[in-house]
Amino acid sequence: MDASDLESLARAVAAGELSPSELVERVRVGAVADLGYAQVDTERGVRTGVSEVIYGAGKSAAQIAGIVDAMRRAGQERILITRMDERKAAELAEMGCSFAYHAEAHAGVVGELPEPDGNGEILVLTAGTSDIAVAEEAVLTARFLGNSVTCVNDAGVAGIHRLLRHGEEIARAQVIIAIAGMEGALPSVVGGLAACPVIAVPTSVGYGANLGGLTALLAMVNSCASGVSVVNIDNGFGAAYQASLINHLSGKR
Amino acid sequence: MDASDLESLARAVAAGELSPSELVERVRVGAVADLGYAQVDTERGVRTGVSEVIYGAGKSAAQIAGIVDAMRRAGQERILITRMDERKAAELAEMGCSFAYHAEAHAGVVGELPEPDGNGEILVLTAGTSDIAVAEEAVLTARFLGNSVTCVNDAGVAGIHRLLRHGEEIARAQVIIAIAGMEGALPSVVGGLAACPVIAVPTSVGYGANLGGLTALLAMVNSCASGVSVVNIDNGFGAAYQASLINHLSGKR
Amino acid sequence: MDASDLESLARAVAAGELSPSELVERVRVGAVADLGYAQVDTERGVRTGVSEVIYGAGKSAAQIAGIVDAMRRAGQERILITRMDERKAAELAEMGCSFAYHAEAHAGVVGELPEPDGNGEILVLTAGTSDIAVAEEAVLTARFLGNSVTCVNDAGVAGIHRLLRHGEEIARAQVIIAIAGMEGALPSVVGGLAACPVIAVPTSVGYGANLGGLTALLAMVNSCASGVSVVNIDNGFGAAYQASLINHLSGKR
Amino acid sequence: MDASDLESLARAVAAGELSPSELVERVRVGAVADLGYAQVDTERGVRTGVSEVIYGAGKSAAQIAGIVDAMRRAGQERILITRMDERKAAELAEMGCSFAYHAEAHAGVVGELPEPDGNGEILVLTAGTSDIAVAEEAVLTARFLGNSVTCVNDAGVAGIHRLLRHGEEIARAQVIIAIAGMEGALPSVVGGLAACPVIAVPTSVGYGANLGGLTALLAMVNSCASGVSVVNIDNGFGAAYQASLINHLSGKR
Amino acid sequence: MDASDLESLARAVAAGELSPSELVERVRVGAVADLGYAQVDTERGVRTGVSEVIYGAGKSAAQIAGIVDAMRRAGQERILITRMDERKAAELAEMGCSFAYHAEAHAGVVGELPEPDGNGEILVLTAGTSDIAVAEEAVLTARFLGNSVTCVNDAGVAGIHRLLRHGEEIARAQVIIAIAGMEGALPSVVGGLAACPVIAVPTSVGYGANLGGLTALLAMVNSCASGVSVVNIDNGFGAAYQASLINHLSGKR
Amino acid sequence: MDASDLESLARAVAAGELSPSELVERVRVGAVADLGYAQVDTERGVRTGVSEVIYGAGKSAAQIAGIVDAMRRAGQERILITRMDERKAAELAEMGCSFAYHAEAHAGVVGELPEPDGNGEILVLTAGTSDIAVAEEAVLTARFLGNSVTCVNDAGVAGIHRLLRHGEEIARAQVIIAIAGMEGALPSVVGGLAACPVIAVPTSVGYGANLGGLTALLAMVNSCASGVSVVNIDNGFGAAYQASLINHLSGKR
Amino acid sequence: MDASDLESLARAVAAGELSPSELVERVRVGAVADLGYAQVDTERGVRTGVSEVIYGAGKSAAQIAGIVDAMRRAGQERILITRMDERKAAELAEMGCSFAYHAEAHAGVVGELPEPDGNGEILVLTAGTSDIAVAEEAVLTARFLGNSVTCVNDAGVAGIHRLLRHGEEIARAQVIIAIAGMEGALPSVVGGLAACPVIAVPTSVGYGANLGGLTALLAMVNSCASGVSVVNIDNGFGAAYQASLINHLSGKR
Amino acid sequence: MDASDLESLARAVAAGELSPSELVERVRVGAVADLGYAQVDTERGVRTGVSEVIYGAGKSAAQIAGIVDAMRRAGQERILITRMDERKAAELAEMGCSFAYHAEAHAGVVGELPEPDGNGEILVLTAGTSDIAVAEEAVLTARFLGNSVTCVNDAGVAGIHRLLRHGEEIARAQVIIAIAGMEGALPSVVGGLAACPVIAVPTSVGYGANLGGLTALLAMVNSCASGVSVVNIDNGFGAAYQASLINHLSGKR
Repeated sequence: MDASDLESLARAVAAGELSPSELVERVRVGAVADLGYAQVDTERGVRTGVSEVIYGAGKSAAQIAGIVDAMRRAGQERILITRMDERKAAELAEMGCSFAYHAEAHAGVVGELPEPDGNGEILVLTAGTSDIAVAEEAVLTARFLGNSVTCVNDAGVAGIHRLLRHGEEIARAQVIIAIAGMEGALPSVVGGLAACPVIAVPTSVGYGANLGGLTALLAMVNSCASGVSVVNIDNGFGAAYQASLINHLSGKR
Repeated sequence: MDASDLESLARAVAAGELSPSELVERVRVGAVADLGYAQVDTERGVRTGVSEVIYGAGKSAAQIAGIVDAMRRAGQERILITRMDERKAAELAEMGCSFAYHAEAHAGVVGELPEPDGNGEILVLTAGTSDIAVAEEAVLTARFLGNSVTCVNDAGVAGIHRLLRHGEEIARAQVIIAIAGMEGALPSVVGGLAACPVIAVPTSVGYGANLGGLTALLAMVNSCASGVSVVNIDNGFGAAYQASLINHLSGKR
Repeated sequence: MDASDLESLARAVAAGELSPSELVERVRVGAVADLGYAQVDTERGVRTGVSEVIYGAGKSAAQIAGIVDAMRRAGQERILITRMDERKAAELAEMGCSFAYHAEAHAGVVGELPEPDGNGEILVLTAGTSDIAVAEEAVLTARFLGNSVTCVNDAGVAGIHRLLRHGEEIARAQVIIAIAGMEGALPSVVGGLAACPVIAVPTSVGYGANLGGLTALLAMVNSCASGVSVVNIDNGFGAAYQASLINHLSGKR
Repeated sequence: MDASDLESLARAVAAGELSPSELVERVRVGAVADLGYAQVDTERGVRTGVSEVIYGAGKSAAQIAGIVDAMRRAGQERILITRMDERKAAELAEMGCSFAYHAEAHAGVVGELPEPDGNGEILVLTAGTSDIAVAEEAVLTARFLGNSVTCVNDAGVAGIHRLLRHGEEIARAQVIIAIAGMEGALPSVVGGLAACPVIAVPTSVGYGANLGGLTALLAMVNSCASGVSVVNIDNGFGAAYQASLINHLSGKR
Repeated sequence: MDASDLESLARAVAAGELSPSELVERVRVGAVADLGYAQVDTERGVRTGVSEVIYGAGKSAAQIAGIVDAMRRAGQERILITRMDERKAAELAEMGCSFAYHAEAHAGVVGELPEPDGNGEILVLTAGTSDIAVAEEAVLTARFLGNSVTCVNDAGVAGIHRLLRHGEEIARAQVIIAIAGMEGALPSVVGGLAACPVIAVPTSVGYGANLGGLTALLAMVNSCASGVSVVNIDNGFGAAYQASLINHLSGKR
Repeated sequence: MDASDLESLARAVAAGELSPSELVERVRVGAVADLGYAQVDTERGVRTGVSEVIYGAGKSAAQIAGIVDAMRRAGQERILITRMDERKAAELAEMGCSFAYHAEAHAGVVGELPEPDGNGEILVLTAGTSDIAVAEEAVLTARFLGNSVTCVNDAGVAGIHRLLRHGEEIARAQVIIAIAGMEGALPSVVGGLAACPVIAVPTSVGYGANLGGLTALLAMVNSCASGVSVVNIDNGFGAAYQASLINHLSGKR
Repeated sequence: MDASDLESLARAVAAGELSPSELVERVRVGAVADLGYAQVDTERGVRTGVSEVIYGAGKSAAQIAGIVDAMRRAGQERILITRMDERKAAELAEMGCSFAYHAEAHAGVVGELPEPDGNGEILVLTAGTSDIAVAEEAVLTARFLGNSVTCVNDAGVAGIHRLLRHGEEIARAQVIIAIAGMEGALPSVVGGLAACPVIAVPTSVGYGANLGGLTALLAMVNSCASGVSVVNIDNGFGAAYQASLINHLSGKR
Repeated sequence: MDASDLESLARAVAAGELSPSELVERVRVGAVADLGYAQVDTERGVRTGVSEVIYGAGKSAAQIAGIVDAMRRAGQERILITRMDERKAAELAEMGCSFAYHAEAHAGVVGELPEPDGNGEILVLTAGTSDIAVAEEAVLTARFLGNSVTCVNDAGVAGIHRLLRHGEEIARAQVIIAIAGMEGALPSVVGGLAACPVIAVPTSVGYGANLGGLTALLAMVNSCASGVSVVNIDNGFGAAYQASLINHLSGKR
């Protein structure tokens, strides 16, 4: 609820259409449906311009079903459920929840994916074949949020020509998501080649001193290339979410 | 040098205007001025759309002077020198290098700051008064890169109303830079309030288990808010650089 | 055994009611029942005012049964067994031990929960649905120790209005337990809103750079809000124990 | 500003005493004095019952003077300035700011220390002589906030009888602050002896694998004693602040 | 593609044998077969003198089969597949892929192992019996790359005479691979005895504060012996790869 | 082989009883039986006064059987096999290897345990019931090495009187092994009470910020008590081994 | 105060020589002189058989002088003051405190060093010349505590023959202190050569990934040699203290 | 001393030219000059083929002078002293020690640099101007050890064309030293381009989450390029030492 909403309410009070205590109630309760285990923000789409997403990890199928239900009743037609493994997806389906499951992205989608309506294209780059699982989450999220996506896999820096041959895609992108495990060097090279923002996603791909992805994260945060920012390890969703925000910004005002 | 440049060169060879070995030389040498201690990328502005910047830390005043000189000879009129302390700035000035020193941002600017030409406004938020030094670097960088900037200081989450009263600035921003030390919670709250991308900058402000800013960095990377990405500790420059890229993206194509 | 106990014993010696070596024996043995694998402190309730608790992790069902038995023989009627999974609880029940198992809190209770007798109310806040498991341990512990508890779930800072609408509960609480994983920002915001002590519980909820909860712990310890202290990761029990101590303090003396 | 404040404002609107936009302004601006580099929360004392404190580290003497000035103009008579070294204190004094400097606590106090008005007594325990600097900050803060304080130094666990002889002070305390560096074992022993809450303060005292106090912090968070919570390394202020909140709680309601 | 290749292409353009846009295509596409999930570098053997290797972890059997197929079609007769467990090897075999599986090295080899053609001999030393699994990967890799290998196991420094009795093998080696877990001291002792380069491989053998091999890695990187460099934890492949490069260097030019 | 052995060999050469090359062979080969996967030190008992031990982790049952066989052929009658789980023990038994399996200590013993022949008694103290598994390894090892052992469990510092009542055992011990997880405070208290050396064993008992025992290890290394040294996490064997060395030292020479 | 002391007191009460409250006072107060900033344990020598030591770091010269004074008044003639730099030593001397300052050991000694009265000899080994500062603290401490000490420097494992030529000193030692920085491998090799206990001291010698000595500490704790235990980084004092305890143990009882 | 040396001595004994005890003395003492604070290995050049080097950090000028003296008396004409700052170099010069000081490499050289006698050329690459200090140590060390060196600075991956234009130097090198701070990505890209071994040197260049170079070290150890091994942070010496060993290996035998 922002200033103009509050002003509307206050005007209604001035007009005698709303009692003062009703204004208080409206302000407090806002647009939250309280399920006990979750407070569902049913007006988030309105407020931030992005549809609501359910982070599936650590929630039971029943809890997810409840949240989906509350959202749908509040008019939300398209819902993304991330970090949901196949077993939980099956349970959710058995509960009568209708959604498409994307196994490779570990995610479910209630409703149809929208037509792309962003300013340009999001380019998703992975350093190696093993990073594709994270890329799939990013690609699905970006599409869910209304973006056109191109994906180039296995373009790691140890074979730099595999990356350089995709110069056109890099030049064309509105925003780039660079995904890499191990030493996480891909975003640094991409950041030097691209004229658009690069969002780096460290992955847990690797072994030993990769520290479960922490090494890649630290490396990416220290990137010598300007224009690179970083999200959590394996967080394909988060990168795509921010990329979508960027891709939907209005131009010159 | 991209594909179209190369095609032009190849056409010149086909036309007999260029020998094959000249093509090779052009490709290899490109637009780099080699000073021995530095290879100055004199066409970077053309390639990525952003003027060149000198990272001043670990370089001597003489080395900086040499790089500035090479850039200027290559036609670069506006140069930002970051992470330069007062002593080094004085040395640089004594060498006859002409620039304005911004003490609070630990940075120097050769040439004039440009008129803002971005799509909208960059909002710089700090959690506390002690974070202002990092904010100054971000503000100067953003202005150097042609952005209009608003700055709100001391809006940390422990007094949440100090942040909430700036809802209008948050709603108006094209991109937000959220700067915080200690527990680094500011970007999470801002990320939930804003409809635009948030770039989080952890700072080394704090003591004890702040681990020199690593705690804030880790916290920010784990932000429960979507739309937040992170740069290195105290890296006001990097945040502003990416913010500027975002703020200068062309709109709908 | 404190000074007044010792003085009583010494008086008995002076009165010839106790031999000197009996005094030594009493002092050494005190109120400990030694089971070989455990030394059960059968007078702890008397000494610290709090009933005894069994930390179930790393103990076999047989060891737990033995300790429960020793406690009951010493007159303890109410016993809390924490960190006991369903399988161990079943084994314990098969051994004839009578207790109620609270699956969601991973804990068992021998005897009845008491009537609340604290000064006020303990408020348990969680940042997200996935933190509820830790909250359940805290709620059960607090009730076991004689407290009235209110629980508000999914009030994380990325949707700050979900928290702000619970201002009344915050204002009413005698002590607040704030539970959060990921970046652990909840206690900082709550600490700024509340006039009572806040005990922060980091959880292992999250992934990647959450470092199994260490990130949240470090963030909470660095909270910019005053009045916040922290317990171990996922330690709902410990937070509730301290909250109960605070809630049972005598007032003005 | 809580619900009753807002209701008052809404009533004034209903009564025509306030225009709707004035209500909005009041809600947004609240009680914050904006100095540019700081947003001073001039009603914090009213809201949380605790006087305002200035964290001096990372602020210039001029900034501190400005904040003190804003607070005093808002009616605040007693102000604590923490983490201010002697040099900064001297600069502040030269600016005409009137305060008492407590060198051993690295803190300044504007106005008089109040009479104690808490429920009982706060006991501050240190493990070693080298921890006294942190204890001094805790003691001064506790007194500033209206508490009666007892301090017992050098009661580390390697000479356990030095601690055990203070059983009376431990039994009498309303809340205990246990301060220790190195292995940080003091709070575990105290937690087992006391019937009141124990707030543990790890210190950076020690060398080598003490990791600047992180070892003590981790140890304290893992305390096997119930009833112990932890604040940041060397954070005597934070421990005393929470202890004071506990010591000022109203009793049975 | 290096300068001479490019010059050849440019000459072909000058001679009218190649159109300018064909040159661009050749340069961009190079020798990469794009399978979607992988970009196979089919000319790597030519470029770096070493046959191609497939890192099996994180790739499905189907993906591996696809890459093997692409390589074979490009004329690669000998392919090493590392980090492939028995189950995946069985799946790969069921897909009709022909290869020999080396269970102890967790690797598969397509084609025949070559005759050794290196300058001298590679000596593989392990500190303990538990390190042999890593040694097996190193030995197989070295043989695959055309090296003669000697292996001495269980020569850890706690029984230094077990190492010293192998002085002849140490003196004879062209390059030594020293493999150790726990405290990782073996390379330091070997480095002091040998006149040739020593490549150290930390292993995850051990428990507790071995930190999954990180302790050994850190120790090896800090070796007081000169002539020691280090690869990732358990990276027998990487050590053997570099050892083979060293063993195949041309002598005096 | 020490100086006097070598001198004997050299004398034999001088006497013509041994050829020079035979001397070399004796020195090189020494007393090592090389099994390929292990170099068994068959004279270790002679050299260091302690029977040989097999570290079972990471070795197959077949490898263990081979080492046992080599040792027995070299005249070793008593062999300890540590870190061997029940499944591997069963495999080893099936191979015809004769030994007693101690399930609680995860260890096997070939031959009979000896009569104690140390100078005094080793006292093994555990902080909690969950630490007993580590204590069992220590107790068995100490007995295997010829020591008389007393064991006191669950004597953690949070109930300090449980420890203090064992003052006599502490006073009587020749050397103390203090085993604790969580915050690892036990050795500090014991170190202050005892007049003999204390060997501290951190355990992985605990959760969250115990970091798998690293917290306890760091705490113990920082012990404020003098006379405390530390071994690896869960290393009951290592503590007992050193304790036995201490307990078997000859007295005044 | 142990059981026999308490029994004596109780007997005095029974005999009417002591009032019950006097017994309590005796037990509580024991033998501690309370200076406010320190509680000096004036009977420690009696209790643990070792003279008292003052840890000088973090104490002012005035505090040290006060503690020395209290000890001397309690009859302590020989006092060791560790971690005292030259400036503090000079201040202490100016206060009239009489002691000998050992600059290389950063320590002062009040009174005369005693004649050695241990069972055998302590051998102090350093890996490199840079570790000597730590060795000096160990040597002085050991001599202060009545031990005969031999010191061999620069015997690091990268030149293993430098260590092996000191086989006789190793064989003769009652206990060995092995001091090393960097990778900390020395104790592992020594542990395999020696038949006596080895106390390992990691030092902060080195740079980069030595992590201020943490790498050496972790390596030593993971030593593959049995019979090695570890103290804190640079803790020459602690190693010598435990070595002295071992060297003064009574033999066969 | 190897087997053939020992056999010679034994033959001398057999021939009556040497007494048995003289053989023992020869074996023990070997070729070490013991200065008390250092054991100088005067035959190292003979044994490992590389001249002796003095690690200057942590040694006093007097100690260095003593070691230089011992080496020269043993016939060593060329000595490298690393990690010696200007002040220590000046002290050393005042003591009459004759050497050339290389300020930028923080090293001194006694005697003349030799003519290059390696097989090929060592290429030293740095990622940025700030890494040059480390490169200087590597270059001087390599020259001291008889290598021809080429140095290319400021070739970091964020401007990949700056690296790619040096393809010829990369192709020509016998071994490459790749030096980088921040995210340490350079060796991964170079490793993919080069056909020779790459030794990676992480540097402490950078700030914040570079963790003093640890981030670069971890990244390099996780390099996705084969043929890369790593030395300690800022260890230009160590990289050059190993590179020299590689460059001096004999070819085909």
